[in-house]
Amino acid sequence: MTIAGLDEASLHSSLRDPLLGSLGFLNEVMDRYPDAISFAPGAPHPEFLTDLDVQRYIERFLDHLRGEGRTPERARRLLYEYGPGRGLINDIVSDALRHDQEIEADPTAIVITVGAQEGMLLVLRALFRSGEDVLAVANPCFVGITGAARLLDLECVAIGETPAGIDLDALATACREARRAGRRLRACYVAPDFSNPGGSRMTLAARMELLALAEREDFYVVEDNAYAFTAAGDAQLPPLKALDSGGRVIHIGTFAKVCFPGARVGYVVADQRVGDTGRVLADELAAIKTVVTVNTSPLCQAVIAGMLLEHGRSLRELSRRKSELYQRNLHHLIGALDSCLGEVRSSRVSWNHPGGGFFVRMHLPVPADADLLETSASRYGVLWTPMAQFYLGGGGEEQLRLSCSYLDIDQIDAGVLRLAEFLKQEVGV
Amino acid sequence: MTIAGLDEASLHSSLRDPLLGSLGFLNEVMDRYPDAISFAPGAPHPEFLTDLDVQRYIERFLDHLRGEGRTPERARRLLYEYGPGRGLINDIVSDALRHDQEIEADPTAIVITVGAQEGMLLVLRALFRSGEDVLAVANPCFVGITGAARLLDLECVAIGETPAGIDLDALATACREARRAGRRLRACYVAPDFSNPGGSRMTLAARMELLALAEREDFYVVEDNAYAFTAAGDAQLPPLKALDSGGRVIHIGTFAKVCFPGARVGYVVADQRVGDTGRVLADELAAIKTVVTVNTSPLCQAVIAGMLLEHGRSLRELSRRKSELYQRNLHHLIGALDSCLGEVRSSRVSWNHPGGGFFVRMHLPVPADADLLETSASRYGVLWTPMAQFYLGGGGEEQLRLSCSYLDIDQIDAGVLRLAEFLKQEVGV
Repeated sequence: MTIAGLDEASLHSSLRDPLLGSLGFLNEVMDRYPDAISFAPGAPHPEFLTDLDVQRYIERFLDHLRGEGRTPERARRLLYEYGPGRGLINDIVSDALRHDQEIEADPTAIVITVGAQEGMLLVLRALFRSGEDVLAVANPCFVGITGAARLLDLECVAIGETPAGIDLDALATACREARRAGRRLRACYVAPDFSNPGGSRMTLAARMELLALAEREDFYVVEDNAYAFTAAGDAQLPPLKALDSGGRVIHIGTFAKVCFPGARVGYVVADQRVGDTGRVLADELAAIKTVVTVNTSPLCQAVIAGMLLEHGRSLRELSRRKSELYQRNLHHLIGALDSCLGEVRSSRVSWNHPGGGFFVRMHLPVPADADLLETSASRYGVLWTPMAQFYLGGGGEEQLRLSCSYLDIDQIDAGVLRLAEFLKQEVGV
Repeated sequence: MTIAGLDEASLHSSLRDPLLGSLGFLNEVMDRYPDAISFAPGAPHPEFLTDLDVQRYIERFLDHLRGEGRTPERARRLLYEYGPGRGLINDIVSDALRHDQEIEADPTAIVITVGAQEGMLLVLRALFRSGEDVLAVANPCFVGITGAARLLDLECVAIGETPAGIDLDALATACREARRAGRRLRACYVAPDFSNPGGSRMTLAARMELLALAEREDFYVVEDNAYAFTAAGDAQLPPLKALDSGGRVIHIGTFAKVCFPGARVGYVVADQRVGDTGRVLADELAAIKTVVTVNTSPLCQAVIAGMLLEHGRSLRELSRRKSELYQRNLHHLIGALDSCLGEVRSSRVSWNHPGGGFFVRMHLPVPADADLLETSASRYGVLWTPMAQFYLGGGGEEQLRLSCSYLDIDQIDAGVLRLAEFLKQEVGV
């Protein structure tokens, strides 16, 4: 009897996508150089993970359930049973969205997901027909959405990005081209506040224009809200969903950054009515979810709900300290780059100055590829993320991404010194 | 500006599958008749959810992490960060599989998933090419696997079930027919121990024969191990994976029943080498998982690991009390049916006598449909699950499923009395 190896060619083809390979490579480099200063991961700062009291948050949510009239035993069991596919904490999330984001969403129009990632998969699966519909994404683009599209064998069309977000003229052109090709540009994915990795932010005018275009060209807008909380307190802009009088926006959020990633809790607001069925899109998403993860861990939902309750059901209160730290870190990183490399800043090497988010993007005069990363890690002890993997259809080969979220001020200072030395010695800037 | 309703016809077609509709209907009936005795849900018994001490299990796992040399702070942070896509507790699960199931699986050949459901989706996505490959399932079949196939637009072929599990002759015929049609029967899904809902159990000989057939016809076996723990202690049979000298079996397990559903933790053993890449199938599954849920909540994994550690890394020790209760309940349900309805048992009404699992299947002389369920609920206060929804391509219209897992002995007695009255009055048995 022979041991059945799996013929690689017999697997689903898109598994061999270079993206997954390059993400694996990055993790592997980080493992090999544990002492390097890493600007690579967009992970939350460890400071926010040390004082988490999960038990207290669970008790806070149990108090809430008992306050609604449940017996202590019934309340506790809700955390351990399967629970509804749509979620257990939708009312609390609904309140938070209304208080801080000006989003009016009925709890039944919300689905609690295993992170924003599952939300993206559910939305694409509900809206898109493979081989027919096209998803527009800003280029460069968050790999979670293009990855979910690839899992479903959906076609993406890459639209350039301006500092004010996705290029709306190019998007309008893509709509017309899709139609001419007998297809349908079904939805456009955008992260209006500090896109990862591009760093762009849509102005209020651009937001209104995108919504008007969606009306005119009949597509939906998939809004990813992950980094909006990092905006300075006096620089908040309304999310697209708050401006969505035409019912064009499906809003995806995550608690990974305002609470903690290990909970794996996110949400989708999908209030669009489905024909004359009496259902809304959230019902369809919850139905699909039953064959993806059945439901989001009620235990994890309880922890998140407890955190929200402890902060008056306010995302803004919950994220205030975090927002301040990330603002500080980002400004510090940009300041350090300006001070260490300002004299060589030119068309050969440059970086953007985003007003929020976790990331700075840098242009080099040479390919920022795996070989260069290996050199940077082994000889200079500094890591970063090659940008090419975020581009659809090529591009970004001479760019890298620097994340500031995970580091302390002194690490940022030391990391930028190493990066400057690396760039001077190896790249000749 | 008009509010965009979603045109139902514009959604992905399989959303309108009758299955999801019928599951929704069942939940809705249960909501409307909260005082009915329900043989519908295959949920764990509430007794096992009342004394769960999540905090203790988390501390137990933290002890373990510290024992491996991590600082207290580093150990704690592991629970709150993203963590590896493959999982955090693979070594402990690997030990448990070796101790109790005779499955030798390296931790790197295991992926920890958001329940068995995500595991099914990942396995199908990795192995199958849409439009080309066919999945064989026993008919009737667990809706989780057919649902995952539908999400990926994969074709299923239904194979009849004998008391000794899937009909192997019919399976061999299906392989040949697929080949003749220019397609490939890529894998066969089976739950060898007490399938849900059929209740069949594969003999040791049938297990060996299935593996030999898989070798001969070149397909993979997707083994669902959910109910194996309910076998009486002296009636254990080895899982297919323990007999899998040819590397044909992908083994899927869940902690929903041996621990608790709210953790949403399951696992896949996928040790098949992928070509000459140096990777195994588990690596492919972990890569796909990054675009489904990124990773399984480390917090939930910690709770499950703590439960395993507290029971000497033994699934059998962990599930002993549960196995005994479900055995008792199942035998009690069958005994009550035999005693209340034994005199009318005939070709017109009959039920099976499975040796384990949560479910008894009953044949009626009339359609066991939504109307009959409504009558049963409203006039007799007893609920059950129509079986037709578990059949692919029609069948089972005159069958219902009774679950014993969720109820106490006195509820089973009262429920069977109500069921007998319902059957005598409404069905005329």
